[in-house]
Parts: sequence; C-alpha cells; structure tokens
Amino acid sequence: MDNPVELIIRKRSGEKIERKELEAIVRGYIEGSLPDYQMSAFLMAVFLKGMDKEEVQNLTEIYIESGKTIEFSSSLKTVDKHSTGGVGDKISLMLAPLAAACGAVIPMISGRGLGHTGGTLDKLESIPGFRTDLNEDQFRRVIDKIGFSIISQSKELVPADRKIYALRDVTGTVESLPLITASIISKKIAEGAQNLVIDLKVGTGAFIKDMDAARELGALLKRTGEKLGQKINIVYSDMNAPLGFYIGNALEVKETIEYLQGKHIPDIDRLTRYLVTRMLILSGNASNEAEAADRIEKALSSGKALERFADFIEAQGGDPSICEDLSKLPQSSETISIKVEKSGWIRSIACQEIGYSLLHIGAGRQKIDSRLDHAAGAYLTPKVGDHVEKGDEIGKVFCNDREKGLHTVRKILAAYQISDAKPKTDERAATDLILGKEL
Amino acid sequence: MDNPVELIIRKRSGEKIERKELEAIVRGYIEGSLPDYQMSAFLMAVFLKGMDKEEVQNLTEIYIESGKTIEFSSSLKTVDKHSTGGVGDKISLMLAPLAAACGAVIPMISGRGLGHTGGTLDKLESIPGFRTDLNEDQFRRVIDKIGFSIISQSKELVPADRKIYALRDVTGTVESLPLITASIISKKIAEGAQNLVIDLKVGTGAFIKDMDAARELGALLKRTGEKLGQKINIVYSDMNAPLGFYIGNALEVKETIEYLQGKHIPDIDRLTRYLVTRMLILSGNASNEAEAADRIEKALSSGKALERFADFIEAQGGDPSICEDLSKLPQSSETISIKVEKSGWIRSIACQEIGYSLLHIGAGRQKIDSRLDHAAGAYLTPKVGDHVEKGDEIGKVFCNDREKGLHTVRKILAAYQISDAKPKTDERAATDLILGKEL
Repeated sequence: MDNPVELIIRKRSGEKIERKELEAIVRGYIEGSLPDYQMSAFLMAVFLKGMDKEEVQNLTEIYIESGKTIEFSSSLKTVDKHSTGGVGDKISLMLAPLAAACGAVIPMISGRGLGHTGGTLDKLESIPGFRTDLNEDQFRRVIDKIGFSIISQSKELVPADRKIYALRDVTGTVESLPLITASIISKKIAEGAQNLVIDLKVGTGAFIKDMDAARELGALLKRTGEKLGQKINIVYSDMNAPLGFYIGNALEVKETIEYLQGKHIPDIDRLTRYLVTRMLILSGNASNEAEAADRIEKALSSGKALERFADFIEAQGGDPSICEDLSKLPQSSETISIKVEKSGWIRSIACQEIGYSLLHIGAGRQKIDSRLDHAAGAYLTPKVGDHVEKGDEIGKVFCNDREKGLHTVRKILAAYQISDAKPKTDERAATDLILGKEL
Repeated sequence: MDNPVELIIRKRSGEKIERKELEAIVRGYIEGSLPDYQMSAFLMAVFLKGMDKEEVQNLTEIYIESGKTIEFSSSLKTVDKHSTGGVGDKISLMLAPLAAACGAVIPMISGRGLGHTGGTLDKLESIPGFRTDLNEDQFRRVIDKIGFSIISQSKELVPADRKIYALRDVTGTVESLPLITASIISKKIAEGAQNLVIDLKVGTGAFIKDMDAARELGALLKRTGEKLGQKINIVYSDMNAPLGFYIGNALEVKETIEYLQGKHIPDIDRLTRYLVTRMLILSGNASNEAEAADRIEKALSSGKALERFADFIEAQGGDPSICEDLSKLPQSSETISIKVEKSGWIRSIACQEIGYSLLHIGAGRQKIDSRLDHAAGAYLTPKVGDHVEKGDEIGKVFCNDREKGLHTVRKILAAYQISDAKPKTDERAATDLILGKEL
C-alpha cells in the first residue's frame, strides 16, 4: 500500500480513494498492519468529507469479500427486512413468522442493542433456552423447516465491518451515510438475502431526524444494493413515538405474542402489514397488494403466524410454551407506576431520551459489554396528540432495582412535552406511520 | 470527563469545546486513559472543523501547563526566532550568533528534521562532539556566557505537544492552523522567550502555499502568543527556491561559517539581516532599523558573529576549529555532478520535491527513526528566472552511496521546470524574499 498517511490526507482533502487503495486500508486494518489510530483518522475524514457512490459500492464489496458469504438457490426468492433502528422496534419478531407463514423465505442475521435502541437478538435471548449462535448448517436447516431463522453474525461473515463498526462506535463516526450503507448492505448480501426491504426510520427516536437525510440515505442504500445484485425497496417510517406499548427485551417478546394472538396494536399492525406486503411483492411471493393483504390477514387470523413463531422458538432451542403462558418469560420484581404531573396535550416525545433512560435499569447497553436485565423495561401508552390529566397513570416501569427505576421514571416523564393548548389539528391522526414516497 | 465520544461528536459538528473539556482530553491522552484512536479522531475533527481563537489559546495554555517552563528575568529581554520550515533553511545558525553579538539573549529550543525540511539540531550535530541535550542549568550557563544556546526539547517541556505531535505526524493532521499554533507558541513560551519573531514561509517548499493561508496563520500565532504574554512579530518570507546554495546537515554548517566569514550569499544575507533587525527592535535591543542595521554590519565585518558561533560550539562540547578548517566537518565519499538536460529559463522549482529527493541519501528523515548521513546533501545554484544551457552543471550531490545519489540527481532535475520562453519580466528580481505586510 501507499503510505497510509497519504491516503488519509487525500480523503481529508475530499479526494476519491480508488478501490485498490480502499482495499489496502481495510485489509491492513483487519490484518493489523494499519493501526487503529490511522483507521479512526481515516473514518473521521470519511465522516466529514464523504464518499461518492462508487467508493461506497467498492467499500461494500470489500466488506463482503473480507469474509464468507451464504448463498441460497434463486428459486427460494429469499427476502429480509432491515430497520435502521428505533425505540420499541420489535417488528422483526412478528414480521418474520408472518411473512414465512405467507410463503416467504427469510434468512435474517440480526444485531444486538447499543445505546438508545434495542436489538432483536437480545429480545429473542430473553426466551428461556433460545440460541442465536447457530452455524451456517443449523441456520439453513431452520430456514428449510420453518421458512425463517434469526441468528447472530458469525465471525466469518463480513469481519471487516465487525471490526470497523466497533471502532466507529468509540470514535464518533457511526452516523456516516456511506459507512452505514456499506455496513448494512454488506451484511444483508453476505447472509444470502436476494431481496431486501429497508425500514428507514425518521424522527426523534431515530438517528435520521429529517426526510432530506432519509432520502439521501435511502437512495444510497438502494443504489449500492442493486449494483451488487440485490433487489431493494426502501420504506420511510415515522419514529416520533415508541413503537407499540412495550419497550424492553422480554416485554417486547410478550407484545409480539399478544399481537400474533390477535390483540390490536394500531402502529404495530399498520407497520407490520405494510412491510410484509412489500416483502411478499418484492420477492415475487405475491403479485399485488390485494393478494398480499389477503394472505397476511389469513396467516394472522388462522393463528398460523403464531404457530410459526412457536416452531421457530423450538427450532432454535427455546421454550415454545411461552406462547401459551407469558408468565414463563423473565419477570421483574418491581413495577413502578408513571403518573403525569401536568394536564395537557402531548406535543412531542423525546424517544431517544426514553431509550437512554432505560439503560439505567438494564433494558439496553451503555457499552458493548454492559449486562442486560431481560425483564426490565417500560409500558407506555401516550402517543403524540393524546390528552392527559395530572395524576393519570401513563405507564409503568418494570425493574429489579427500585432506586434505578425511580430515576428512569423521572427521565421518561421529562421526555414528554405537554402543552396547555389543544393542537390545532389532530396531530396523531394527521401523521401516518408510513412517510413520503418510497423508493 | 464527559464521555469522550460526545466531545468528539461535538467537535465533529463544529461546536466549541470548553477549556475544562479540552484539558480532560489532553490530560487523558497523556495519562493513557484516552486511547490514541479517540485522540486521532478528535484531531481529524479539529483539522476539518477548526477551533476558534479562544480554543486555540486554551489548548496552548494546556500544552504549556502539561510540563515545566523555563523563566528568565525580564531585564534580559530574551528573544527567539521560529521558522515554519523550508528547504535549505539554516538561518537560525547564522542568526543566533549574529543577534547575540548585537546584544540579544536567545534561548532557542529547536527541533529535528522530518520529511522534506531539515532540522537545526541535526545540522549542529554534524559538528564533531556537539551536544544538544543540555539540561536547564547547562542551557542557562551557555546563554549567560555566549548570549545564546540551541538545545533539544527535554521531556519535561510541553510533553503534551510532544506526544500529540507524534500522533499528528502519522494520522494526516499536521497542517492544521490551530494545532500548529498551539504547538509553536507553547514551546516558545515554555523555553522562556519573552519576544518572538516568526519567519512564516510561503511557497513550494513550505507547507503554506499562499498568502491568504499565511495571513490566517500569522494572525492566529500573533494573537495566541500575545494573549499569553509574549511579544510577537510575524515576517512572511518566500520559499519558492531553496535558501542559499547548500542543503544537507554538515553542508549547511559549512555555508553558515562561510557566510559569517564574509562570503556574500544574497538570499541568506537579506533574510538574516532582516530577521535579526526585527529581533533587536522587538526585544528593545535596538531602537530603530538604522541602529539595528549598523550593529549587524559591525558584528559581521568585525568577525564577532563568527567568534560567537565558535564560542557557542565550544560551550556545547563541539570542536570550534571547524570554523577555521571546514574539512573537519563530515565529508562524503561521492560527488555527483548535476547537469541540465534542456536549455531555457527556470520557471519554478518544486522545492518540496528537492527536499524529499535528499531523503534517499540520508540528508533527512523519512520516519522519526530514520538514520541520517550528516555528510549527504546537495549544492544547487539556479534560482527562479535564471537561464541555463543544456549540459550546464547546476549543482552537485554529495553522498556515500552512488546508486542512491544518481536517483537523487534525477529527482532534483525533475524539480526544475524549465521553459523555452524568456519570462516577460525578470521574475527573480521582481520577487523580494520578504513578502507582504508583516504583522
């Protein structure tokens, strides 16, 4: 490789880095010849100076080529969904069995929670006995049998992204659109998903706060995936309130089962049906929206989606009887009521703050090695536009440490902005969960 | 300290970092609690997002406070000169004894060469026996006796800058005006210089290529030093041709002695007299330019400046007889003639490339631990605007490895841009060595 300092200086000056050079940097870092302090300076230069579309595509390919890839026969029409992360976002849990019950094949490699957002793997691991560390053969066997499997990323899959992501996390270089794109697409191609629906979250609980940035990221994700042979559908969705009513690992599994049992949870229902529709159409499992809607309705009302979820739990070593007895999930020793201290209308919810407040009681991770309390979390009912009266119980905090729980309650209350004036229009109804024109 | 990632993110977003936060970062880095990969991401964010004047002042103070400082009685009116670095820039060597012979007191802590520019310490160490690693007492005693001393930076002086500079060097974050300012001013205040003349180089052989950037750096240096109680005079000087005729460690000592013996070297003479005049006036050792010019002329023509140089060499353990017998300096085994391959006028000289070409024969350092060949270097006569005939000898390369020397000759020839057309005006005469209005 050229002198790495010269490459850092070129990126720092906004110049393009050629594929061979980018490869030398990434390989050098994985092999240890490029020290982490040079990589972090390079990443900060990328963060602030960007990368063009070709550089992003090259980086994504280099990531993929850094490890092994899983391939499925094209007749399987594999399809996955990726969410860019939100508070209470448990959609993968209901979506995967539902889509599988509708005939889709979903090889899902998922992540753990960090910071204010939770992780699908952590949620699943709250189920007694559940295992996410399957090898490729086991992964394939579960998919063959159930139609989907959700596992953790093995060390052999995109090791470059694993190592670089860990460095980005501690050097303030996470929220870079080129780096996010390479990270998402490389993993989703390496896991064998031929089709991919991306749920791009926008709002106070997402790292993307406005539609302009969302569209930029959406376009980059779509172009990069498609250049590398993956079909991509981008859905923009609102993240200005936690999704559903529960936040916390076991609590979100509980909410998933309740939803699959037939409980109506408006936002969860809207988004799950929408995303599964996109998945079925994109992968050719349904030819139009009406057909998709019909199959989704049947899979839910017949109980087949719930059955598929139970089978999946069993196939990955967990106890499927939790689907009949929710009390078998981890339970907290303390329940603290959350009561509003002021009457008025909910103007906005600082979702990210709610996510962070739950780290205190162990519902999420502050650092990569933080310990989780699977039973901890919150139940929160208000959405934007709701009216509340002083003294109303708007939710509960579940925890195993009352002191920490009280701290979390205070932080959650501070996250709701309550206004004296009634909003001019019904803001809750005015905003659909699905935003803008999708890609 | 707050989470360092939050501070990196704030600087990345262009926000101001408060003094206490900056102190936590620098101290954390020195003590080892802040890892180098976080420091390098922070430095790249500073490089690309800048620092305001107050941040630069705070950083400079934090640098100074990281170690000990040397203080001199204010009646001594200590004065130093700092050059931002050029090719063939040996001015400190003739300037210090000349200024001392005119009554100035100069506590000079200098550096080593790295990359395309040489270092004063390396040049002095080509003198048999010469020592630059004096402790504070020895430094003070030499200054008391001779009026000046030139030594290396001890580990106790601004350790923060030492450690951070080493990291900047390998992470592409050297050429940042805020970081350069803090680095220069902290060292010059810690060494006890009450007055400071800065020779700010502009041109192909300097890291500052144009006057706009030069003025920005000049203003920042002046403000920062003065806020911390140092009187500062900024001189802008041209660096589009190597200074003098010789480049190389022992060769530049030889040229220094020849100049102090009375040899006329136009650019060296102009710049040395100019800078010494500024030093004498700034420190109150001369009340006006005429008085300064008169004392400079006397110190040179009487041989007192040369005598002072010999005394200084002796005081720091070197052999002063080199001032009478230049053959006692290290000599190279090979001398290779440099002949132009084309007739025409010299349009420009890629000085930086000449500096880099000399690294091959050991005249400078590629890396911090590269070994020097004190005898190696070049003699180069053409300046911009000169006419040359194909086959003319325009200089020589001195080396101890003929192969490497031939490579250097080719690189040097490539650095001269020779044009067929005669320049419209006499470009050489039109450009004074001293540029623009000084600060």
